[in-house]
Amino acid sequence: MRNTTAAIIVIGNEILSGKVVDTNAAFLSRELRQLGVALRRILVIPDELDVIAAAVRELQPAHDVIFTSGGVGPTHDDVTIAGVAQGLGRQVVRHPVLEEKIREFSGARINPARLKMADVPEGAQLIFEGELAFPVLQVENIYILPGIPDLFRDKFLAMRAPFAADPFFLRVIYTRATESAIAEHLNATLSAFPELQLGSYPKLDDSDYRVRLTLESKDQSYVNRAFEHLLAQLSVGFGL
Amino acid sequence: MRNTTAAIIVIGNEILSGKVVDTNAAFLSRELRQLGVALRRILVIPDELDVIAAAVRELQPAHDVIFTSGGVGPTHDDVTIAGVAQGLGRQVVRHPVLEEKIREFSGARINPARLKMADVPEGAQLIFEGELAFPVLQVENIYILPGIPDLFRDKFLAMRAPFAADPFFLRVIYTRATESAIAEHLNATLSAFPELQLGSYPKLDDSDYRVRLTLESKDQSYVNRAFEHLLAQLSVGFGL
Repeated sequence: MRNTTAAIIVIGNEILSGKVVDTNAAFLSRELRQLGVALRRILVIPDELDVIAAAVRELQPAHDVIFTSGGVGPTHDDVTIAGVAQGLGRQVVRHPVLEEKIREFSGARINPARLKMADVPEGAQLIFEGELAFPVLQVENIYILPGIPDLFRDKFLAMRAPFAADPFFLRVIYTRATESAIAEHLNATLSAFPELQLGSYPKLDDSDYRVRLTLESKDQSYVNRAFEHLLAQLSVGFGL
Repeated sequence: MRNTTAAIIVIGNEILSGKVVDTNAAFLSRELRQLGVALRRILVIPDELDVIAAAVRELQPAHDVIFTSGGVGPTHDDVTIAGVAQGLGRQVVRHPVLEEKIREFSGARINPARLKMADVPEGAQLIFEGELAFPVLQVENIYILPGIPDLFRDKFLAMRAPFAADPFFLRVIYTRATESAIAEHLNATLSAFPELQLGSYPKLDDSDYRVRLTLESKDQSYVNRAFEHLLAQLSVGFGL
């Protein structure tokens, strides 16, 4: 099975201080799942050079792909490029293609702050896809995306195709039994299907069900057999 | 100034796989800010013993307080207690007070899954506050909270008072200038007020303003002086 692991690094004081609710990580979680990519970490950190560099050093070797969100604008608190570069032991350099695009777009309004947006970690690639006015930066396995949700979304959707791995197959069971009452059946199914990804999610004050069980695998036959195994034990369950 | 740093560890495959959108971290971010607590990290990880233990080992010594969300129920995928214990080098033991409460509540429905919820890292304290039917677990500087949002919220609100530190003072400036145009003024204010927490947040397609600037400090006079300094430079700004 072709598997890919991923981590998301969300960079922004505004999220940690509760001023803004991040939606990029949740959006990307759903997208990656649909692509068959296993997201293993979401890390939210402040706009600080050393913290970004440390996060890159820790997460980059342990995952196939890293996405960053935020910190790529023209102001003092936009330090993602410098942080990623430092984490990878690379210099920050001005990219001639970006510089040309920015000069063209800015005309007489060109200034050092605008030109800062042409800076990249040395060796970075520019990904031009679809309708993107401004490319996505890639350096090694790190994809650097802007924090503004509309831009984050447009850029990811434009470049997502190559990330597709083998899909996850999901079956779901809803039951009115409590988690405590069915725990032994879940354990029995896991003993028989040790590779199954089995989630158990209680719901309070819901009239239709008390627990939602999710069964997943990249092996469709395996998850179907695990589903039948578990359903047979749950006298009060119904499956979808 | 009395400062407190915090980290949140959110534990749950359902969040990483995009099935559930976490709301606990955003809720707690706002609460901690109001309490004057500086949240420095949010980390979302899967329901895996070794990953939880590693997160605890990494984040626990570097922050004054750690909150965990999720993974405390009766089923196989609830491994937060064991993960926190492993991360702290402690055993998992059955807590007699919890066991008694659970036996009382369960009556004839008592079973190993229910009793699992009486397990705690050795040496854990029980925090009974307000109307809480079931206590919050504390071990060292780690507070273990349930993932269900209503319970997470109720438990945090019941126990939040002792976390209060000196407050953050916030001033906000809205401007119709672009970030690139004002970047030099932001830098000048930061040179004059190096301890200022200054955020610059562009907004696309908004008719009232293009950039929101947030100025923060635990020193009220300092943030007020920085606010006047910056406002004086922004011919097109208006402040609140």
